[in-house]
Amino acid sequence: MKKPVILITNDDGVMAPGIRHLVQFMLELGEVVVVAPDKPQSGMGHAVTIVNPLRLERITVDGGHQEYSCSGTPVDCVKLAVNKVLHRKPDLLVSGINHGSNASINVIYSGTMSAAIEGAMEGIPSIGFSLLDYRFDADFLSGKRYVQQIARTVLKKGLPSGICLNVNIPAVPENEIEGVRVCRQARANWEEEFDHRQDPRGKDYFWLTGRFSLHENSNETDEWALENKYVSVVPIQFDFTAHDLLPELQKWNLDAEKR
Amino acid sequence: MKKPVILITNDDGVMAPGIRHLVQFMLELGEVVVVAPDKPQSGMGHAVTIVNPLRLERITVDGGHQEYSCSGTPVDCVKLAVNKVLHRKPDLLVSGINHGSNASINVIYSGTMSAAIEGAMEGIPSIGFSLLDYRFDADFLSGKRYVQQIARTVLKKGLPSGICLNVNIPAVPENEIEGVRVCRQARANWEEEFDHRQDPRGKDYFWLTGRFSLHENSNETDEWALENKYVSVVPIQFDFTAHDLLPELQKWNLDAEKR
Repeated sequence: MKKPVILITNDDGVMAPGIRHLVQFMLELGEVVVVAPDKPQSGMGHAVTIVNPLRLERITVDGGHQEYSCSGTPVDCVKLAVNKVLHRKPDLLVSGINHGSNASINVIYSGTMSAAIEGAMEGIPSIGFSLLDYRFDADFLSGKRYVQQIARTVLKKGLPSGICLNVNIPAVPENEIEGVRVCRQARANWEEEFDHRQDPRGKDYFWLTGRFSLHENSNETDEWALENKYVSVVPIQFDFTAHDLLPELQKWNLDAEKR
Repeated sequence: MKKPVILITNDDGVMAPGIRHLVQFMLELGEVVVVAPDKPQSGMGHAVTIVNPLRLERITVDGGHQEYSCSGTPVDCVKLAVNKVLHRKPDLLVSGINHGSNASINVIYSGTMSAAIEGAMEGIPSIGFSLLDYRFDADFLSGKRYVQQIARTVLKKGLPSGICLNVNIPAVPENEIEGVRVCRQARANWEEEFDHRQDPRGKDYFWLTGRFSLHENSNETDEWALENKYVSVVPIQFDFTAHDLLPELQKWNLDAEKR
């Protein structure tokens, strides 16, 4: 049987330990092609590069499979990989493993997840993986069996059109992981705090920092799952329409008066 | 009665004609504060700036109201405006007027809409406005009465928690606009084409281009409304969960075997 083609990207950059581990995990499941950013792109959301040209450089890291370093965002990487490297859709796209959580509202800021969403938009079965540990030397091996099992299942079953998976892994030793929970995105937001400083020339600048604020404690959410040492799996779609509000809004007087 | 405070931002940059028109339109409705990117940030999606510090510069363009030019993304602008300029939530956030469509799937790539979504995440009634004309000297006056009427209605009624509006205006003379349609995001995607070139040193580079591909022609969508010369209004939310898929996915064998 022909091996499935697995495209791998991330937002922490092609040399980050998270993607290096993911490459090793996927080499056991199929033929791997890596196209990932040449520098960290965390917090890039669904950004694409349109005012600058894109560079794509063939690199060799730790094996004979194809790897490319790209000057663009995670979404650029997916587009370039499909169009200029593979010249076809891969059988699976995996993004990550992100250093840090992409659960709850983090999905909207996440370059890792935007790559997976872009994959779903192009009809590729796609999964974003994140480990709840921001450290460079986080223990990515603890989640190996879950990452592989979820990837294997998606390779076998596919995913419905326009849906990808957001998988987050708790930062606990492998034997403490309770299993997998399919759940929904928790309601939360970031409360910003800016660190206000002055540069050596006396000009103001700000560092964006913030505090994650969870608005619910339902056991149906990804935050609950992770807090309770489960791997969280949230199916993600990209219709932003607030369908429930349509009937109400249609009653509003939004139309300008005809002249 | 106290005038409402209206925060204005965009993604085409603080000097773009689209935001200059929006400022003029909003000065007739309330007290205006502008915090917008110092350079074009189109296609930035929901990006935030975390690896670089942010700059905020007081500028004077065409009036006595407060205006700031910010080195960051549209989302950064909203966060900085609320925390470091206003020190409170504005009564309304308006983003745009974007030069070009943010209807359908464009919402996910749009810096204009990410600013409005960020506003909604922070509990601010927020609206993104876009005109279907990419040109620098597009006719923004044609939509003035609709922009003002929609803003006025949202100022009066507010918006449900976590919802903002995505408003697109067809590029036709004012007297040809048929009215307002409340509708849903059309299903579509971009089919990429990369323009592959070589720089003077013989190294490859790529320009991202693409073709918009609409997957449906229902009259319930924003694309249909715009095609038929209506102003489209789509309520937007940021729960990405594919709720319909949860029961099915819960039956899948995603769990790794216990050792």
